[in-house]
Amino acid sequence: MTSRYMKRALVLARRGLGTTSPNPMVGAVIVDPHGHVVAEGYHKKAGGPHAEVVALGRAGQAARGCTLYVTLEPCNHTGRTPPCTDAIIQSGIRRVIIATADPNPHVPKGGIERLRQSGIEVVVGDGADEARMLNRPFFTWSVVGRPWVTLKIALSLDGKVATTTGESKYLTSAQALQHAHELRRQHDAILVGSGTILTDDPHLTYRGRRQGSDPVRVILDSRGRVSAEAAVFQSESPAPTLVFTREDTSIEWERELFAVGAEVIRLSPGSDGHLSIPHVLSHLAERRILSVLVEGGPSIHAAFIAHHLADRWVGYLAPVIVGGVGAPSAVAGTGFSLDGAPRLHIETVARHGPDVVIDAQFLWTHAAAAVPSHVSRMEVH
Amino acid sequence: MTSRYMKRALVLARRGLGTTSPNPMVGAVIVDPHGHVVAEGYHKKAGGPHAEVVALGRAGQAARGCTLYVTLEPCNHTGRTPPCTDAIIQSGIRRVIIATADPNPHVPKGGIERLRQSGIEVVVGDGADEARMLNRPFFTWSVVGRPWVTLKIALSLDGKVATTTGESKYLTSAQALQHAHELRRQHDAILVGSGTILTDDPHLTYRGRRQGSDPVRVILDSRGRVSAEAAVFQSESPAPTLVFTREDTSIEWERELFAVGAEVIRLSPGSDGHLSIPHVLSHLAERRILSVLVEGGPSIHAAFIAHHLADRWVGYLAPVIVGGVGAPSAVAGTGFSLDGAPRLHIETVARHGPDVVIDAQFLWTHAAAAVPSHVSRMEVH
Repeated sequence: MTSRYMKRALVLARRGLGTTSPNPMVGAVIVDPHGHVVAEGYHKKAGGPHAEVVALGRAGQAARGCTLYVTLEPCNHTGRTPPCTDAIIQSGIRRVIIATADPNPHVPKGGIERLRQSGIEVVVGDGADEARMLNRPFFTWSVVGRPWVTLKIALSLDGKVATTTGESKYLTSAQALQHAHELRRQHDAILVGSGTILTDDPHLTYRGRRQGSDPVRVILDSRGRVSAEAAVFQSESPAPTLVFTREDTSIEWERELFAVGAEVIRLSPGSDGHLSIPHVLSHLAERRILSVLVEGGPSIHAAFIAHHLADRWVGYLAPVIVGGVGAPSAVAGTGFSLDGAPRLHIETVARHGPDVVIDAQFLWTHAAAAVPSHVSRMEVH
Repeated sequence: MTSRYMKRALVLARRGLGTTSPNPMVGAVIVDPHGHVVAEGYHKKAGGPHAEVVALGRAGQAARGCTLYVTLEPCNHTGRTPPCTDAIIQSGIRRVIIATADPNPHVPKGGIERLRQSGIEVVVGDGADEARMLNRPFFTWSVVGRPWVTLKIALSLDGKVATTTGESKYLTSAQALQHAHELRRQHDAILVGSGTILTDDPHLTYRGRRQGSDPVRVILDSRGRVSAEAAVFQSESPAPTLVFTREDTSIEWERELFAVGAEVIRLSPGSDGHLSIPHVLSHLAERRILSVLVEGGPSIHAAFIAHHLADRWVGYLAPVIVGGVGAPSAVAGTGFSLDGAPRLHIETVARHGPDVVIDAQFLWTHAAAAVPSHVSRMEVH
């Protein structure tokens, strides 16, 4: 059972959704011996003060003798800010309740030990599951060394993503589009295949109502098909645009993309001539990209699923019937048998305007799929 | 604004769901001058007493001077039971509030006039929309001369109804299957194409938990492909099995189906060689079939939609990804452009076990599509 103070700390943590990455979301609550909340805090933004420090700053002298509830193990090293353990020890806090240890392999450990050595009572595990769920991208990246992957799909009630002639724009409503922008805000990167660039010419920027920045744009283009004139290269966004391609695409094309601000990354293709999804994700993980929103098309979705490298499925169902034997549906590739087909757990079903949004988690029967590990040691917390 | 007594009458009416057809569901409430409910009734079963008569019987002498709320205009003719108007007049009821007039063109009119002529005050329109919504099959059949058509589809989250190799059985859960059986109970007929018989060999019977009878089974088989050994012909069900085919299929095949209890109905095909959906529905309407549950496959769904002869869509979404370019999705045919694609209004989204059930109404921009009118005069109320 999660204590009510830790529940409150988890609610506070969530306020940082979309602005803390590559840091995790963290919340903290300081409670006096009578059970009254003295101060609260959360981590608002990467580079800004950590949750514990915010709460301790607000509590001041009142923190003395209190209990600190915090959703993640306090850091024990100097990153962009000084160690939180020092601030806790200096504050006179008597007890620290921690939801879960910090899984990040790229920072020095020892927050819990340091606090204990200084005589503070430390309890770990209050709300552990919720805390890990809250920061699924951070935990996936820390534990398996790849970004958390969400597949985003807009489809008709009969499962089509486009008509037989390829029309697909604005299949879903303005309300669903707003939800999709919020999804972009919550991810570090958006990824599409070259086919999506050629047919839809999207900007791949964040244009939602809340404060947020553009995700990194990632394009998989093994054969070098996208043009430097595509809208994605013409935007004024400060976010980088990465184009993954094979080693043998032309240098001329790379120069054209470079001239419009894109970065071309060459990978050796697999035996099927396609780019290796595991290698792409490994590269993104190295860049501290904790979460990737895959926006299609159907072959790209199929490739992620075939590699068991999809964690979440967000389907936007538009109340329209498109029909047609030749109209593409959401996932292409060779397909699965019913026994071998990946199953999911539907977490939420919500209505946004006329549309239905289904948010589901893949239930891979093994542990989360990892990628080739050449992630370097990085300090991010 | 619907009065609370009419709301109650509508709730009572709904208790007859699945057992009144070809009659409509009807509920009645008798209220004394102080606003107290004296008696209630509903129409339970075709052939049994009508709602008004049930309520009046329960009220006895207490009905004198009261107001009767009834969800449909009382009948003014002798069918399987005597006219309700007589019973109302004899009871001493002073006022009758009716949700909506009886639209049935196959019975004598005049219930409202008859009551008024006998000095009873009659008000029409309280809860009219709800009353028509409640009996959509009956109103569609009465007004446009064809059954109300529901398309039922079980599909994966990525819109597939089967794998690339054709597997589809039990794509959805046991809970969703129960819901699907309740849907069968609520329809007068189930309709499938011959492809569904050949690949799935279904029984097409009602096997739900509530009391109910098997719907009429309807198979569209223009080329005479189904075998007399199919499960659908082997069941012990008393419900008829109708097989629609073209005029030129073999007499031998017809004799085989006749021998296992099926009825073969021959129609002249359209210019495309297919059976005409409007003619099939017209034939079913003549048999007093007020509602048809179309259970696929994808080409059959496409044909109904292409003719604008679909009213409701019930999609069972299984939390599984099937994938595959060649895997069939829910609606085949030639498909629509986005501008021309039929739009729907999603009425409810519900979870049944691990699955999601989407219940939607087609929003045809014109009036409900009619069928060639050779529906004979029939007395059903």
